[in-house]
Amino acid sequence: MRDERVDMYGSNSYEFTQKQREEIFVCSKSKELDLIELDQLLQTVGWSRRPIRRVKRALDFSILVVGLWRHDDKFPRLVGFARCTGDGILEATVWDVAVNPVYQGLGLGKEIMKYILKELKSSGISKVTLFADAEVVSFYKRQGWILEPRGSKCAFWYAN
Amino acid sequence: MRDERVDMYGSNSYEFTQKQREEIFVCSKSKELDLIELDQLLQTVGWSRRPIRRVKRALDFSILVVGLWRHDDKFPRLVGFARCTGDGILEATVWDVAVNPVYQGLGLGKEIMKYILKELKSSGISKVTLFADAEVVSFYKRQGWILEPRGSKCAFWYAN
Repeated sequence: MRDERVDMYGSNSYEFTQKQREEIFVCSKSKELDLIELDQLLQTVGWSRRPIRRVKRALDFSILVVGLWRHDDKFPRLVGFARCTGDGILEATVWDVAVNPVYQGLGLGKEIMKYILKELKSSGISKVTLFADAEVVSFYKRQGWILEPRGSKCAFWYAN
Repeated sequence: MRDERVDMYGSNSYEFTQKQREEIFVCSKSKELDLIELDQLLQTVGWSRRPIRRVKRALDFSILVVGLWRHDDKFPRLVGFARCTGDGILEATVWDVAVNPVYQGLGLGKEIMKYILKELKSSGISKVTLFADAEVVSFYKRQGWILEPRGSKCAFWYAN
């Protein structure tokens, strides 16, 4: 990676070129996120809006926060996102995996997940979990995730 | 609750009497856990042993750690446990819910969960999740947890 991109995205970032689009994309856990831009990205995937102050605090308390940028020397654009919570020792849980619909179908989600698993693995975590919506179950299955091991189910409780 | 029990378990603890056994049980998030005793408890429920140093660090990085003690003025006994990870703002995930088999069937697991949800709710968290093993799915269902909302599935990834 070129020096100026290391400056922009941090030394632990991961760069790849998407063949179809001939564009450079970079995954980074160190480049700071613009919360307005993140809010816009999450809106493009149709998620309910959350107060930015609460999102900021949730990111602060996440153990890994990853942005995916379509690189541009002047105006890199945030097109993907994911974050993890967990104890950072025994387990981690992946949340809020999002790719801007304009950039879907290019394998970017897969790259974000690869980057996340590499980072978690390098910190010694041996078990990673996530809750997959019905429409992305096959996406995770293809990448080697085990669905409902031994009949376990995910359960949700909502405060009213 | 009597003053000496507040001293022992902390002011946020929750005491109840189990009718069948006429014993006092106390849920506490502040009383410190003896890691050897915790390890023994987790062994009674048949979980694979984890290095105590890693367990200690995982507890340090959990957002809520709850013990359930059968009260005794001198030697309270740890008979239940659960912990949560998460960002502490938007969501939390419950892990490692355990009740010593000798004390199962008395509603203690339910009390631990009630205590956990009360604590999480009071800190403003509106979504709590967990991964339920096949044999405890009905336990959570009875307590109002929603299983696999809209067809979502839990997915696990293990480092090899």
